[in-house]
Amino acid sequence: MATLAHDPLWPRSGDFPGPDAIEGRLDAALVGIPTWRTSLTPGGTGETPAAVREALRRYSAFLGPDRGVRDGNDLGALRVADFGDADDPHGEEGEARARDLVAGAAHRASLVVALGGDNALTVPAALGTWGGDTGTAGLITLDAHHDLRDGASNGSPVRRLIEDEGVSGARVVQIGIADFANSAAYAARAAELGITVIHRDELLRRPMVEVMAEALEIAGAGGGPIHLDVDVDVCDRSVAPGCPASVPGGIAARELRAAVRAAASHPSVRSMDIAEVDATADAPDGRTVRLAALCVLEALAGVASR
Amino acid sequence: MATLAHDPLWPRSGDFPGPDAIEGRLDAALVGIPTWRTSLTPGGTGETPAAVREALRRYSAFLGPDRGVRDGNDLGALRVADFGDADDPHGEEGEARARDLVAGAAHRASLVVALGGDNALTVPAALGTWGGDTGTAGLITLDAHHDLRDGASNGSPVRRLIEDEGVSGARVVQIGIADFANSAAYAARAAELGITVIHRDELLRRPMVEVMAEALEIAGAGGGPIHLDVDVDVCDRSVAPGCPASVPGGIAARELRAAVRAAASHPSVRSMDIAEVDATADAPDGRTVRLAALCVLEALAGVASR
Amino acid sequence: MATLAHDPLWPRSGDFPGPDAIEGRLDAALVGIPTWRTSLTPGGTGETPAAVREALRRYSAFLGPDRGVRDGNDLGALRVADFGDADDPHGEEGEARARDLVAGAAHRASLVVALGGDNALTVPAALGTWGGDTGTAGLITLDAHHDLRDGASNGSPVRRLIEDEGVSGARVVQIGIADFANSAAYAARAAELGITVIHRDELLRRPMVEVMAEALEIAGAGGGPIHLDVDVDVCDRSVAPGCPASVPGGIAARELRAAVRAAASHPSVRSMDIAEVDATADAPDGRTVRLAALCVLEALAGVASR
Amino acid sequence: MATLAHDPLWPRSGDFPGPDAIEGRLDAALVGIPTWRTSLTPGGTGETPAAVREALRRYSAFLGPDRGVRDGNDLGALRVADFGDADDPHGEEGEARARDLVAGAAHRASLVVALGGDNALTVPAALGTWGGDTGTAGLITLDAHHDLRDGASNGSPVRRLIEDEGVSGARVVQIGIADFANSAAYAARAAELGITVIHRDELLRRPMVEVMAEALEIAGAGGGPIHLDVDVDVCDRSVAPGCPASVPGGIAARELRAAVRAAASHPSVRSMDIAEVDATADAPDGRTVRLAALCVLEALAGVASR
Amino acid sequence: MATLAHDPLWPRSGDFPGPDAIEGRLDAALVGIPTWRTSLTPGGTGETPAAVREALRRYSAFLGPDRGVRDGNDLGALRVADFGDADDPHGEEGEARARDLVAGAAHRASLVVALGGDNALTVPAALGTWGGDTGTAGLITLDAHHDLRDGASNGSPVRRLIEDEGVSGARVVQIGIADFANSAAYAARAAELGITVIHRDELLRRPMVEVMAEALEIAGAGGGPIHLDVDVDVCDRSVAPGCPASVPGGIAARELRAAVRAAASHPSVRSMDIAEVDATADAPDGRTVRLAALCVLEALAGVASR
Amino acid sequence: MATLAHDPLWPRSGDFPGPDAIEGRLDAALVGIPTWRTSLTPGGTGETPAAVREALRRYSAFLGPDRGVRDGNDLGALRVADFGDADDPHGEEGEARARDLVAGAAHRASLVVALGGDNALTVPAALGTWGGDTGTAGLITLDAHHDLRDGASNGSPVRRLIEDEGVSGARVVQIGIADFANSAAYAARAAELGITVIHRDELLRRPMVEVMAEALEIAGAGGGPIHLDVDVDVCDRSVAPGCPASVPGGIAARELRAAVRAAASHPSVRSMDIAEVDATADAPDGRTVRLAALCVLEALAGVASR
Repeated sequence: MATLAHDPLWPRSGDFPGPDAIEGRLDAALVGIPTWRTSLTPGGTGETPAAVREALRRYSAFLGPDRGVRDGNDLGALRVADFGDADDPHGEEGEARARDLVAGAAHRASLVVALGGDNALTVPAALGTWGGDTGTAGLITLDAHHDLRDGASNGSPVRRLIEDEGVSGARVVQIGIADFANSAAYAARAAELGITVIHRDELLRRPMVEVMAEALEIAGAGGGPIHLDVDVDVCDRSVAPGCPASVPGGIAARELRAAVRAAASHPSVRSMDIAEVDATADAPDGRTVRLAALCVLEALAGVASR
Repeated sequence: MATLAHDPLWPRSGDFPGPDAIEGRLDAALVGIPTWRTSLTPGGTGETPAAVREALRRYSAFLGPDRGVRDGNDLGALRVADFGDADDPHGEEGEARARDLVAGAAHRASLVVALGGDNALTVPAALGTWGGDTGTAGLITLDAHHDLRDGASNGSPVRRLIEDEGVSGARVVQIGIADFANSAAYAARAAELGITVIHRDELLRRPMVEVMAEALEIAGAGGGPIHLDVDVDVCDRSVAPGCPASVPGGIAARELRAAVRAAASHPSVRSMDIAEVDATADAPDGRTVRLAALCVLEALAGVASR
Repeated sequence: MATLAHDPLWPRSGDFPGPDAIEGRLDAALVGIPTWRTSLTPGGTGETPAAVREALRRYSAFLGPDRGVRDGNDLGALRVADFGDADDPHGEEGEARARDLVAGAAHRASLVVALGGDNALTVPAALGTWGGDTGTAGLITLDAHHDLRDGASNGSPVRRLIEDEGVSGARVVQIGIADFANSAAYAARAAELGITVIHRDELLRRPMVEVMAEALEIAGAGGGPIHLDVDVDVCDRSVAPGCPASVPGGIAARELRAAVRAAASHPSVRSMDIAEVDATADAPDGRTVRLAALCVLEALAGVASR
Repeated sequence: MATLAHDPLWPRSGDFPGPDAIEGRLDAALVGIPTWRTSLTPGGTGETPAAVREALRRYSAFLGPDRGVRDGNDLGALRVADFGDADDPHGEEGEARARDLVAGAAHRASLVVALGGDNALTVPAALGTWGGDTGTAGLITLDAHHDLRDGASNGSPVRRLIEDEGVSGARVVQIGIADFANSAAYAARAAELGITVIHRDELLRRPMVEVMAEALEIAGAGGGPIHLDVDVDVCDRSVAPGCPASVPGGIAARELRAAVRAAASHPSVRSMDIAEVDATADAPDGRTVRLAALCVLEALAGVASR
Repeated sequence: MATLAHDPLWPRSGDFPGPDAIEGRLDAALVGIPTWRTSLTPGGTGETPAAVREALRRYSAFLGPDRGVRDGNDLGALRVADFGDADDPHGEEGEARARDLVAGAAHRASLVVALGGDNALTVPAALGTWGGDTGTAGLITLDAHHDLRDGASNGSPVRRLIEDEGVSGARVVQIGIADFANSAAYAARAAELGITVIHRDELLRRPMVEVMAEALEIAGAGGGPIHLDVDVDVCDRSVAPGCPASVPGGIAARELRAAVRAAASHPSVRSMDIAEVDATADAPDGRTVRLAALCVLEALAGVASR
Repeated sequence: MATLAHDPLWPRSGDFPGPDAIEGRLDAALVGIPTWRTSLTPGGTGETPAAVREALRRYSAFLGPDRGVRDGNDLGALRVADFGDADDPHGEEGEARARDLVAGAAHRASLVVALGGDNALTVPAALGTWGGDTGTAGLITLDAHHDLRDGASNGSPVRRLIEDEGVSGARVVQIGIADFANSAAYAARAAELGITVIHRDELLRRPMVEVMAEALEIAGAGGGPIHLDVDVDVCDRSVAPGCPASVPGGIAARELRAAVRAAASHPSVRSMDIAEVDATADAPDGRTVRLAALCVLEALAGVASR
């Protein structure tokens, strides 16, 4: 818990009030879902929601002016509430608790940002927002991995949402799938399910904003809500050392941030999650946790531009 | 203090002689200004000048040939002296000591390279070089932050130089200003002061060399000396983990190095500083300190090309 | 030795069988050459072959489909054997042991991948493969350094292969040579020997695949076998913190991986080595060792595309 | 996976054969129970059995001569088998798997050493050995904490064994209970259950061997088997940095080792576990994992002296 | 900011209420004095008060029963308030702010515990408590160093209190003074001032409790208030890696804790400070900060026994 | 290279002049022997002499007064010279260079302190001092290991000195030999050679000073010079994390320091070495290197007391 300088001219982000402190609609809602017992290998993703909240204080909610592109944009006026953490979000009951917390947040906010936690959180984060709209919903993942394994773990959320919950694979887009990080069997499963797979190398050939636009079109084709799953391990391992499965060769921090902002600016994106950051395994400089915090702020930037 | 192999065919850089060991004009002068008590939050930037000097020994003062662009260029013949460190450069007296040390170095050398230290060193580094030329001087910062705060700290040097010392904001250019790292109030202050702000994202659209050329034109419009402030936190946090405030999403090491070389090749750039590297917070591989040392060498490369 | 989850649908790479377990031709052979006493400065490169073998288990031997470029490609069917480590590969006798081990592997496999160890391993790795073909052989290095020093160390393999072993400098290409990491004397030596030097900055102007194609043409001009020396310190220090001499400003992990795949797809490339990764100096997240493991897999991808 | 020198005169410990490789009775059996999902807070204790096995290779199974006390004692002749790890030892089914694995090992060996894992492993480790002898069994813990919480976690094994499984609190001894690491409620519970509590400070007044003799007498009073639970967090935090809950002020490594040897030399001690070492949180020098490995060897030394 | 399990039977320490939340006398008061600009060398002691407060949550305010010595003792009923941090406690004004904050706390509480911060905090912490009683006050330091330097820094508080503030050296006792950590000149100064110096080696010959009793007698001889300065660097460097100047060969954590408890049980000890812990330089396991937190709890234990 | 405060009243140790700067006899001589290629496993002991020299600057050459035992003792007046490092002290030639450097130092100084380097340095350090007196010389080791292996490495110096150089095993004493760190074969070899072995546990029963007195008597029985080999891995792993083979359960820093001082106070001890500290593997707080530096100062304290 670092001591931070106080300057009234430099309001810090984070420390969002609870939902009862704000009346009416919210622009965005924060929810913590600290899943970790669901991880295939031991890790400390359960510590991450608290760490991201603390990291938010290091930043301001302000977009600077960019010559010829936009003026400065103060996001401090956005109505953002923090709904707290889902208690022990593991097992059927725990997952239900998480889903209910998200549902409550989604009821009030244009965008729910769920702070993970391992990738198992995607299921309650998406379902809590979608409610009965699973039949029209869409899913976009920024992830090096398919997450199509059997069972209920941090390696299976996409399969669970499609096979168990009935989301159409035709409205699922996976951006950043990496070589040597997936198997033939799961790639075949992705194809069978009709998932659109955008390989990490395609991101070398096309700008992220263009790729995301395509993904939003596919995921939104049903006219339902879109959930964005931001698995930070899509980033290069030097950028995301705190993600157990990030790969040398992944994308840059600025690319991830641009992707999140682009997605969050689309009105159909009703929820997103930030997954697989293990705050206890981060580099001492905390760069992965800080990147996760910046993704929250990029989400706010997106919402502000709607 | 690492043991380094000795090879007469591979002369190491660093270990520059004191000013008395060289007669006549100098191409460049090194000055240490280990400011740290001026930091908004505790840190070890005071250890950095010594660390950078040690890191210089890991490198040679040699630019290799680049096919179709240039032949090799041995910088070993440059006349470079090390003026040592300003003693306890804090408070009014300390700052005066630092300014005087820089002034002595600037009197003899084409370029003064001031090794910080936190960003408070920019004030004595610039003023020591400019002497009475504040009215025509220009300032270029490579920095994620505006540094326009009130008071005298590592968050205020640009404001101090403009408001307290009379440098025209019209000849100040800030390159690399980052989202979420500045506030609306200080962005407004930058605009009011007439500062040219080049957003970090603009560096994705234009080559650094072109941006720097524009900056040099603006900063040099008064015909006076230009000071370059290299706040290494403009780099991505994976590249500059040793900078307390570097942000995930910043520029690459090669971009910073190219910027420094380009600036230092301009004859009006009479001084520069390297700021905000905390040697005690660096990654164990010392990459931030090594990048600072490479910035010294890039500065020499620039001088050699004048 | 991390515990890794077991999933029959996600077969792990690594744990290749010994050569006796496979009959007939091999697609690739792994050989460990843990040189470390030959380093100019103390380090733990001798620990790296074991570390890379362990890291391989974290990955699958599968290339995912890339829309419009290729289908998925399961490399699991490749015939790969692990010939184990050369025992104490230092001194004349140790180097001979390493050379013989490589020769045995090269006799059976289309490509020998030698896991270092410091860069001294390049000599036995290349000679073991080339046998009597030194007169027509070619060498490509991915390296920030010329490695043309006198004597027998990790700083001299290229000079030794040319001057002591008779490889023509005209068929030697060095990719990624960095400023401030080499001296005028050795740059001159490279020129005298007729080596083609491709500066690190040229890699900013041309795609890696195109550069490698040129290098393969030059190195293969004699019609003999080509050895690829992958000194991971050609990468940026944030990407390769485990390489003692990696430089801030080097290439990205994806660039190194692309270079290795491109080279390994050429049938004349009969051997390669992965050098200068010190597993004991790596970042806690193991990113440099993992990158080395990915280079092994990229080599398999190249072989599979022949 | 460190490379270790090979010397036939210095046989390494560890790498024990599987149970099928040895006929007849065993002196000791190793069992891994990598519990981690049962931890109150996220951690990597699941990685520890593999790490301890690797660390064992760093040591020899040899007690040196101690003048006037004993001759040297080669433990290499002991018959020790490694029964492998219990698969996913969480939940009712997982715990049953672990208990069965232990039972099989206890059937053959004089002493079962269970490698944890978090402290939840004590339940299956003890029950697997005790079989139907719960009514006469005894339990000794070396632990800073009471572990008498409600529920089934790493904070509850002692309560579970007493309340759920019927072990008499009168035959439970807890050695090393620390100030500020337990609550009034659980201290009261310990008293109500009739547990003998030996405060950490008592270990400053009496030799460990004497304390352990008393504990063995109490725990063995029913004539049944005694289980020893070695929670390494009884050690000082400088000694056991890899234990999440070790406290500054705990015991020394040599004290823990002496306690284990003394206990294991008692024929009624049929099983022990080593708990709460998180290999992923250890100091870089691996001292906590190495201490755990030495506890295995101390156990063998105890068995050899029976 | 670690996530900690919640258990109503295990109330966590820390999170003390502000002074306005409690009416009447307080048993103890916490005050943060985050001095760092006063350090002789750069460091992060300014981060420590917040870190200690967070670490307190890891412990309970409960002393367990120790057979034959005492029953359990729940300290949770003590009336403890947290007066917050002194703002920027540097320079004359800052020191006055700190002194006033302490004075307010001392007015209400039997014992003020000041959390540093570097050792410069001892001056305001002692003076704030003593008020006009400097003429009768006494000082006990647990410190490897004399802290008798000239000027106003973390190396001078003892000299300042004696020479500038008029405390009699005859009532100053320094416990734990280490070889090679002090100079002849300052040892002579200690002797001239009449300070009682207890060498670190004397603590090998006499129990800490006995030494402290002597110290309390000497310091309390004037009948005035005694301030205890706990410079954690009196501990061995393995125990206190977070203290910049701790020495290999210092005392154990349990010795420091015993000393603090013994001192705090004396009614004349009206205030104490905990100094020289740099939370940013601590081992990753946080052992130095945790030791500091335990010293707070030992102080409460002492107060409870008055 | 840390920045250290300057205070004329607190003269720093280290930075000893070269031998030519002092005329006549020396009290002590420093020699660096940075052996590392001789290590059984890779490591950075070659970096340690420079690191120890730097660490010496953190300490003063002053023993404080200890009530009832001794007055303060300023060692600053001792005549100490630094003879620099032996160049590449590996192989026959390198070892001869080291031996000659030591011989030159021993010619002038009462005590030669050789800074290693791995334990292979003991051979040239002892032989260089002994010259033709091998027949009467004695050897005392503070070491967890016998170092009686075959060949020439850091595991063999004691065997080499006895078998190859003719030192009588009857005058060799080994203090601190640890369980599980030696093999039956080498323990038998020690017995056959007539070495006196003092087990680590004996140090729990007798004070170090008494043990050392016995050792000095045995080693000095021939009337010749005694060499003291200080392998820092005799210390507990928490105390000496920078020693690759230190064991949890070893001695404390103060015990090692006391042993060195006691030995160095004996006039027959003409030389000593400090071995097996790997500065590159030390804890971030540098405690192992600092302990090595303190051993140098303890040696000076011993010499001063002769």
